[in-house]
Amino acid sequence: MIADWLLEPCRAPDAEIAQAARARQLQLTKPPGSLGALETLAVRLASLQRNPQPQVERVWISVFAADHGVAVESVSAFPQAVTGEMVRNFAGGGAAISVLARALGATLEVIHLGTVNDPGEIAGVRRAIIAPSSANLCEQAAMSEEQLQQALAAGADSVRSAREAGAQLFIGGEMGIANTTSATALACALLGEAPAALTGAGTGLDAAGIAHKIAVVERALAHHAGPHNAREQLRRLGGFEIAALCGAYIAAAQAGVPVLVDGFIATAAALAAKRINGGVRDWLLFAHRSHERGHTRLLAALAAEPLLDLGLRLGEASGAATAVPLLRLACALHNGMATFAEACVSTA
Amino acid sequence: MIADWLLEPCRAPDAEIAQAARARQLQLTKPPGSLGALETLAVRLASLQRNPQPQVERVWISVFAADHGVAVESVSAFPQAVTGEMVRNFAGGGAAISVLARALGATLEVIHLGTVNDPGEIAGVRRAIIAPSSANLCEQAAMSEEQLQQALAAGADSVRSAREAGAQLFIGGEMGIANTTSATALACALLGEAPAALTGAGTGLDAAGIAHKIAVVERALAHHAGPHNAREQLRRLGGFEIAALCGAYIAAAQAGVPVLVDGFIATAAALAAKRINGGVRDWLLFAHRSHERGHTRLLAALAAEPLLDLGLRLGEASGAATAVPLLRLACALHNGMATFAEACVSTA
Repeated sequence: MIADWLLEPCRAPDAEIAQAARARQLQLTKPPGSLGALETLAVRLASLQRNPQPQVERVWISVFAADHGVAVESVSAFPQAVTGEMVRNFAGGGAAISVLARALGATLEVIHLGTVNDPGEIAGVRRAIIAPSSANLCEQAAMSEEQLQQALAAGADSVRSAREAGAQLFIGGEMGIANTTSATALACALLGEAPAALTGAGTGLDAAGIAHKIAVVERALAHHAGPHNAREQLRRLGGFEIAALCGAYIAAAQAGVPVLVDGFIATAAALAAKRINGGVRDWLLFAHRSHERGHTRLLAALAAEPLLDLGLRLGEASGAATAVPLLRLACALHNGMATFAEACVSTA
Repeated sequence: MIADWLLEPCRAPDAEIAQAARARQLQLTKPPGSLGALETLAVRLASLQRNPQPQVERVWISVFAADHGVAVESVSAFPQAVTGEMVRNFAGGGAAISVLARALGATLEVIHLGTVNDPGEIAGVRRAIIAPSSANLCEQAAMSEEQLQQALAAGADSVRSAREAGAQLFIGGEMGIANTTSATALACALLGEAPAALTGAGTGLDAAGIAHKIAVVERALAHHAGPHNAREQLRRLGGFEIAALCGAYIAAAQAGVPVLVDGFIATAAALAAKRINGGVRDWLLFAHRSHERGHTRLLAALAAEPLLDLGLRLGEASGAATAVPLLRLACALHNGMATFAEACVSTA
């Protein structure tokens, strides 16, 4: 059975508020357009939040962690134990996203979807265990239908929590050793691209490691060849945390919560979400262009123009968190600058 | 007489602290290099501040405003009265930089170096009037030797105030109708480039306006042809606020205060500063790539890799202010993340 909620319509951005916000930008004491992307950001946020004075003070960050069966193919520079270890580090405050969330005053939710070395109950970690790991996508589907539905629902659950907390922006992140391999296979399937064109270094493979990873992705694509829709491609080639991100993006768009998309893996999930439910795209803002090789091609498929290009390739939502101050400053400028009339400044 | 202070040596960044900071980055719980430019930023700030735990909490922003004689050549989309009007708007809190400084908790100093419509005494504006305007650089030197020295000293005065306030970062901004024309002429002279290659739209000229502006810059360069050094090029083709920025950058480098450079005009001043005193370059971080046409060429001449590329072209230090959160987050990550050992996370 298909989880029908995925296909329910997304909210529509408010065109009238967008128009009013554009008109306000033209009245502020600066040459028209001179604040570039900060102007378009403010206009989009106003339209999505249905608020002429958009705000991004309450930010919700959900990081989904899960292990991948494909890790047995030796596609990562790090051992699989790191996934469970990092779950503890996220909650303990030592990971990059922990530091960033603290600096931003954002809420950080860690969702444990299953790891091979289960760290057990940890304060600040939501246990939503599906299995210790997805299956090896080179040899079978990464997830059963039931596992896929659980993962999608875990993402939607996070959006529900974010809404209940009054979040004005939703950010999803991921952690899972070998998950760039899964995301690359999914991206190749969604885009119809060859693995050699999209496969990157992940956490830090050398040239030989990348060549091996390409071969692994080729095996996966050969095994799962066929005219599958995006949902089925996600089930076969994704992972628990990638499916959770996909479910979260769809749920956020349905609920009318703007999303700031992180890097390569999150963008693969975003493209899957958009293919499953086209209305999702309106709700996605893109934080950064990752150093991971396939990201640019995914961004192009989504007609996305990310805010930052800083050579980041960590995941965990770290790139999206880094871009949050730009959204806040865009709102501050939009809401707080004087108009030409208010400031008695001459116009062109 | 040359203002000899310009040639006094700049401080040297601390190589040992840089090395220790690089070593720390390798121990933090992330793949090496995965935080990209945020890692190099933290290392540079540590080295410049001589502090293994760099901080960018106390930010000082000085905006220098002045009118330009070349405005008489009709090179701006806005009337000259706007310069004085904006001085009032900066202090009144309605300008972009006013909003940004407030959002960042930064100190904003407005320095009035001379405008044709003098707004008079305004609370929050430092009066350091040199003249109502520089001279028309198409027909004579923009500044007398004495005026140049006054302008350079005004910049150094701001750095002194910033140091006394304990600033951990200095940002300079500018406002002055027609000042992209002055900065373009200066950039052409410093780089040996033709005006057609560097002249942009400024506050919003159309194609005909840009063609006229190119002709004005060509007249200026023809009038001031000759083998002049950077200081003399600045005197002939700059303006009070551009010279003040140049003086501020040199003074900051001599005092060991890191600088975050804003857009096109600020970068022209930065290149002049580096040509006058080569030790300046180490102290300059670059905030953004402006939409103004000549900026990319100036950045290349300084081997600068700016943090942002958001299509900004406002000046006023607005691009530099927008990049401040990136520096803060880079420091937070560097200082606050756990090491692999601390978090008991396995390494590659």
